[in-house]
Amino acid sequence: MEHIEIATPRRCCCVDVTSRVQAALARQGVESGAALICSLHTTAGVTLNENADPDVMEDVLAALARLVPRQGSYRHAEGNSDAHLKTCLVGVSVTLPVEAGRLVLGRWQGIYLCEFDGPRARRLLVQTLRA
Amino acid sequence: MEHIEIATPRRCCCVDVTSRVQAALARQGVESGAALICSLHTTAGVTLNENADPDVMEDVLAALARLVPRQGSYRHAEGNSDAHLKTCLVGVSVTLPVEAGRLVLGRWQGIYLCEFDGPRARRLLVQTLRA
Amino acid sequence: MEHIEIATPRRCCCVDVTSRVQAALARQGVESGAALICSLHTTAGVTLNENADPDVMEDVLAALARLVPRQGSYRHAEGNSDAHLKTCLVGVSVTLPVEAGRLVLGRWQGIYLCEFDGPRARRLLVQTLRA
Repeated sequence: MEHIEIATPRRCCCVDVTSRVQAALARQGVESGAALICSLHTTAGVTLNENADPDVMEDVLAALARLVPRQGSYRHAEGNSDAHLKTCLVGVSVTLPVEAGRLVLGRWQGIYLCEFDGPRARRLLVQTLRA
Repeated sequence: MEHIEIATPRRCCCVDVTSRVQAALARQGVESGAALICSLHTTAGVTLNENADPDVMEDVLAALARLVPRQGSYRHAEGNSDAHLKTCLVGVSVTLPVEAGRLVLGRWQGIYLCEFDGPRARRLLVQTLRA
Repeated sequence: MEHIEIATPRRCCCVDVTSRVQAALARQGVESGAALICSLHTTAGVTLNENADPDVMEDVLAALARLVPRQGSYRHAEGNSDAHLKTCLVGVSVTLPVEAGRLVLGRWQGIYLCEFDGPRARRLLVQTLRA
């Protein structure tokens, strides 16, 4: 099991962690199976999406902000209910196939930490599983 | 493989199943790997979120109700289309890392069955996978 | 690892791939564990939901279209930002338990490829993991 530490720069942002996950995987030495990538947080998720045009993830963040406004009639008093809700919608983990010791990703797929209540120090966990 | 039976008390609610998942995991005796927790239903999901302030999950339920109203121009005639949609948004399973025979969770993370069309008898399945 | 090729017929549609996933699983010969089913795309996801009444998945597509309109003030210039967003909401993979060489699914659960920017040639990947 490996940890990846990420210092997120803004309240809401998506940080591409693909190469760091790949490096963590290489250190674990699994040839064939899967990699589980988990956020250990309740206001930051993990998703896969386009890694070519950074506007795509900006559109994702803007759409989530429209669906789940920061201000609202929330009960939770910490002012970050929107971040909890977005995390439930996006999810906190992805599981990816591994072949020949590498992640199997589509041509346009990158792995993103989705920060919804930063800036903060965040931690992802990478666990490999055998086929 | 283990089953967890849950009698949900209301139409929409989130039930913390973390300790029951941990107990099921202990019975399976896996030291290192992952635990897959699945809902076997199409109107109840599984998610991870805050286990400290119960208002967080109430906010999640309220926000989902706002995004996906119970009444609408749905085709499905059973009157629970909203529950199917919410289940797709939240997801029906989570996969969590396991180390030293225990779930690896963040400090504030709990595992919730999300009931969207209760009250009902629900069943979660816990399957362990080896690292 | 097995691939499933799907030619989607419309821009937005849900294609039931349950029997094809089951067949891919049988070829891999895993008795007990899990199956990871992944979309290798950024505008098509994978979900589990009702396989009895096809109106359910039509309701899911209609609700997603309402939440994430095709036209909007998106930055990404390809005109398919809605498809990227929907893919983030639905997710690109599911992990399912396997017992006695077969998927463990609830009575009403089917596995769907969710096409959000078709018609296209799509590819799912099925990887088995050992218990």
